[in-house]
Amino acid sequence: MDYKSVIDSIFAQVQDLRGKGTQATYIPALAAVNPEHIGLCLRTLDGQVYQAGDAQVRFSLQSISKVFALAMAFSMQGDSLWTRMGKEPSGAAFNSLIQLELENGIPRNPFINAGALVMADVLIKHMPQPENQFLDFVRSVSHCPTINFNYGVALSERSQAYLNTAIANLLKYHGNIDGDIERVLQFYFLMCSVEMSCEELSQAFLPFADHTRPFDYNGVRLTSSQVKRMNAIMQTCGFYDEAGEFSFLVGLPGKSGVGGGIAAIYPGQYAVAVWSPRLNNKGNSLIGMKSLELLTTLTAQSIF
Amino acid sequence: MDYKSVIDSIFAQVQDLRGKGTQATYIPALAAVNPEHIGLCLRTLDGQVYQAGDAQVRFSLQSISKVFALAMAFSMQGDSLWTRMGKEPSGAAFNSLIQLELENGIPRNPFINAGALVMADVLIKHMPQPENQFLDFVRSVSHCPTINFNYGVALSERSQAYLNTAIANLLKYHGNIDGDIERVLQFYFLMCSVEMSCEELSQAFLPFADHTRPFDYNGVRLTSSQVKRMNAIMQTCGFYDEAGEFSFLVGLPGKSGVGGGIAAIYPGQYAVAVWSPRLNNKGNSLIGMKSLELLTTLTAQSIF
Amino acid sequence: MDYKSVIDSIFAQVQDLRGKGTQATYIPALAAVNPEHIGLCLRTLDGQVYQAGDAQVRFSLQSISKVFALAMAFSMQGDSLWTRMGKEPSGAAFNSLIQLELENGIPRNPFINAGALVMADVLIKHMPQPENQFLDFVRSVSHCPTINFNYGVALSERSQAYLNTAIANLLKYHGNIDGDIERVLQFYFLMCSVEMSCEELSQAFLPFADHTRPFDYNGVRLTSSQVKRMNAIMQTCGFYDEAGEFSFLVGLPGKSGVGGGIAAIYPGQYAVAVWSPRLNNKGNSLIGMKSLELLTTLTAQSIF
Amino acid sequence: MDYKSVIDSIFAQVQDLRGKGTQATYIPALAAVNPEHIGLCLRTLDGQVYQAGDAQVRFSLQSISKVFALAMAFSMQGDSLWTRMGKEPSGAAFNSLIQLELENGIPRNPFINAGALVMADVLIKHMPQPENQFLDFVRSVSHCPTINFNYGVALSERSQAYLNTAIANLLKYHGNIDGDIERVLQFYFLMCSVEMSCEELSQAFLPFADHTRPFDYNGVRLTSSQVKRMNAIMQTCGFYDEAGEFSFLVGLPGKSGVGGGIAAIYPGQYAVAVWSPRLNNKGNSLIGMKSLELLTTLTAQSIF
Repeated sequence: MDYKSVIDSIFAQVQDLRGKGTQATYIPALAAVNPEHIGLCLRTLDGQVYQAGDAQVRFSLQSISKVFALAMAFSMQGDSLWTRMGKEPSGAAFNSLIQLELENGIPRNPFINAGALVMADVLIKHMPQPENQFLDFVRSVSHCPTINFNYGVALSERSQAYLNTAIANLLKYHGNIDGDIERVLQFYFLMCSVEMSCEELSQAFLPFADHTRPFDYNGVRLTSSQVKRMNAIMQTCGFYDEAGEFSFLVGLPGKSGVGGGIAAIYPGQYAVAVWSPRLNNKGNSLIGMKSLELLTTLTAQSIF
Repeated sequence: MDYKSVIDSIFAQVQDLRGKGTQATYIPALAAVNPEHIGLCLRTLDGQVYQAGDAQVRFSLQSISKVFALAMAFSMQGDSLWTRMGKEPSGAAFNSLIQLELENGIPRNPFINAGALVMADVLIKHMPQPENQFLDFVRSVSHCPTINFNYGVALSERSQAYLNTAIANLLKYHGNIDGDIERVLQFYFLMCSVEMSCEELSQAFLPFADHTRPFDYNGVRLTSSQVKRMNAIMQTCGFYDEAGEFSFLVGLPGKSGVGGGIAAIYPGQYAVAVWSPRLNNKGNSLIGMKSLELLTTLTAQSIF
Repeated sequence: MDYKSVIDSIFAQVQDLRGKGTQATYIPALAAVNPEHIGLCLRTLDGQVYQAGDAQVRFSLQSISKVFALAMAFSMQGDSLWTRMGKEPSGAAFNSLIQLELENGIPRNPFINAGALVMADVLIKHMPQPENQFLDFVRSVSHCPTINFNYGVALSERSQAYLNTAIANLLKYHGNIDGDIERVLQFYFLMCSVEMSCEELSQAFLPFADHTRPFDYNGVRLTSSQVKRMNAIMQTCGFYDEAGEFSFLVGLPGKSGVGGGIAAIYPGQYAVAVWSPRLNNKGNSLIGMKSLELLTTLTAQSIF
Repeated sequence: MDYKSVIDSIFAQVQDLRGKGTQATYIPALAAVNPEHIGLCLRTLDGQVYQAGDAQVRFSLQSISKVFALAMAFSMQGDSLWTRMGKEPSGAAFNSLIQLELENGIPRNPFINAGALVMADVLIKHMPQPENQFLDFVRSVSHCPTINFNYGVALSERSQAYLNTAIANLLKYHGNIDGDIERVLQFYFLMCSVEMSCEELSQAFLPFADHTRPFDYNGVRLTSSQVKRMNAIMQTCGFYDEAGEFSFLVGLPGKSGVGGGIAAIYPGQYAVAVWSPRLNNKGNSLIGMKSLELLTTLTAQSIF
């Protein structure tokens, strides 16, 4: 497969979409990002790297970070994690309280905010230094020791996090947060604030595409079966209430973030990361979605 | 891959689950089925067939038939079909009216009952003899001219179909059924009543696993991309509110029915059908689910 | 109290509201009513009658008829009626299916459509000739032997009653309709189609304002306590999801109908009926609501 | 009316219910109250006082205090208060987040927790010393200068107020709290912690039964019409999701609290307060509900 020409073609084709969609502006730090950025990086299991545009500019991972949190929580807890959350698509917005109230504080899956807050609680409970250990893991899995939190972004998010605070309190009311609510929220927003480039992010997702080597990064160990199951959750739950659409149009497991990034994998072949800050009306990167749709269309490769 | 020993091993292992789960008994015809049946059939793209147990006994497809209805409706309408229904997981029971009311009569996807009723309406509107044409299609795709409706089952279901009648009326109220409600319901239940064996069902699903040959059966034509997209919908929506669990445990696109059948595919490799009437608490065949979980575990093959 | 000048003053003041609001047009028979009608009639326990405008023109009672159905069902069943429905305000639209599904087919109260359908089922089950007996009762309580159904309106409503048919089927699914669905629907729509003038309707409601004489009309007998309890239900549930607003602005027990009528009572003093076809956005007569608000404001009399 | 013998009879009859129901124990201070207490006090507009049992023992008003908060907020804001909350029964539990999310942060009425939190925000915004002014008002309206907050109860509630904190954050997210969330919550719980006896509480509610004298207590002024409208809101919204039942059985405007108190009024005649800590399954005092049902039954007096 000539991925180079595919990536170049995608980059050329999405130029027409510049200006479409709406950048997230609910905190100043995200609003300040130049919305014109477009970055792509595809990295194959056999070590090839293809990139275009701003593939080396770092951006805020936001919800993409939940994949790393899940890797850590799943590694530590195994299937007992599923007593505290489900693994079903929610059929609702990522920040809705309705389902959480109806289902007595058990989040539908790890990728809606409620589920990620429970994971933050799990990590805090079981690790002496959760912030450091989270950072060590993402640095390890991405082979990049300079990756870091953006504390300003995290603080800025915390200061206006009314909805997430409501969710955390509802979880606590139902006994599904053990620790201190404020501690959980702060750790949650720190994880979301991690910044990577497409080049780094594609590296960090490569192990999810590779079932031949053991997943073992800084003590975070997953069996081949567990990695596949994480991919399954990405597939069904990775795009909020647009998971079906992404599956339909793209056909790869992946995860998006409100910063405009999307990471996805083609098992046995490659990991890919795209970034463009303007979002569609479901909160997923508009150019990012289109880029990945073009990728599986041009290559005629998808999991289906 | 030695599928023969895998199938044999699965069949041996699931014997322990005999008697677990609960058979559907809401109509006499389903209640009368011997619940002890277990059938498996795996059929590869290169023509190998592996079976075990009651693989040649026919059973009621029920919701599995929605895959054939979708093939016909998608073939006729293309993407304009999605103006009348979504392709997102519902996050709710297959027969719930709540989401349908909140979303103004637009079903979440083609595989919940509301979506299937809309498909029945589409087929009735665009085909002079929908029953015959549906039957011709399933006979063609399964290479089996003796496949037929079970009129007794269909009539029996119709006579107690209060919930589906409620759904059909709510759809009509919102303008999402063009035709006569009674006509739509009768056709819907006829489609559900089709009977196949695992051997026949695995044949009928094989084209969904094969992207190299054109999908063209009795005038129902789908592009390779459309077939993949149908697989994507099976993956995210094929198991009611257990789609995430099936994806997590099994990792194959598929569709289940309340008669205890499940059909699934591994793109590029095989189609598989399992049947055992006793259901888990989500309405999916208990032994069927376990069989497919064992299949992907023993072969270490899944789409993830 | 000089009710004559109060009624005259109300009639004068509401002239400014002519043309505001929207007439119900979902069936031709209602759409054909001249929307300019305004009728008022107040009738005191001591036999005085005050009227203005089109007080002698008959209109379609629609949901106001549910008060008569409740009187009959409550008379026959007593408090065992409340095993099949509640008596709480619904907090939702009168025709919503959501609450009914969540609460397993038990309607919130007798005045939402689901509750009225259950009452229709009760009356059919316990009376040999429900249509005749219903008519006899309303003729008796209104002292007017010419009151009748409008069969054309009933048939017209039935022909498009998709939402009510959905509700009836959902009730049946949950076992809360004993009889034939079609029979129940036809009787329900016949009851709704009864026509009265304000003069007649105020007479028919007068017994609800009078606790000194026994309620006994054509065999429909209610104790003084039961009459008060019916008034309580009118107060909390009589105006769909505008019950609180009506209670706040008017402060009288009452019941409205989509035909533009409202009947209300001031216990110990009077019954009042108003009619004007144009509705506010909650489905209650715009001029009717204003008239009654003026009535309790000008008289400084309300139950509060 | 011989209220003395009525009160005595009620007190005698409810003895059989001792031990039924469940005391609120979610905070130690409420759990520590002796659940055997039963107090009643009826106070007529012409100055008679009838009491029985522990009518002079103070208890925690909890949600009954919302009536005083509404008097203050309505006095200050008039009908503009209704831009920030409704006055419709909620049809849902007093502490549910579902309706609040669906209706974009506008509480259904002032007596569910969300509405009371918005009122706390209003009072904080418009009064320099809200705690003092609230206390001055309740002391004035009850003619009792020793009434006070119970700071221990308030702190204890605050420490576990996960659900109310969730509600407050959801309100803030929707822009329906102006001030600091923590400040609002602390003031809310202080108001709830006010303690009165039945004797004092009946005095404090007497002005709501009296439309002949102006309502003017420590600067809190309401017109006669506004007092009636407050009564209307008590009638439709004063008993959580048991408002219809209370209206049906008792037929008086009133307000209950989780401490086991209920206050009610019969306009033009009397105010009544009852207290008994054990609650029915809807969270209203079991003996209190029965006492008031007996009161209107024995006197044959109610607003209906």
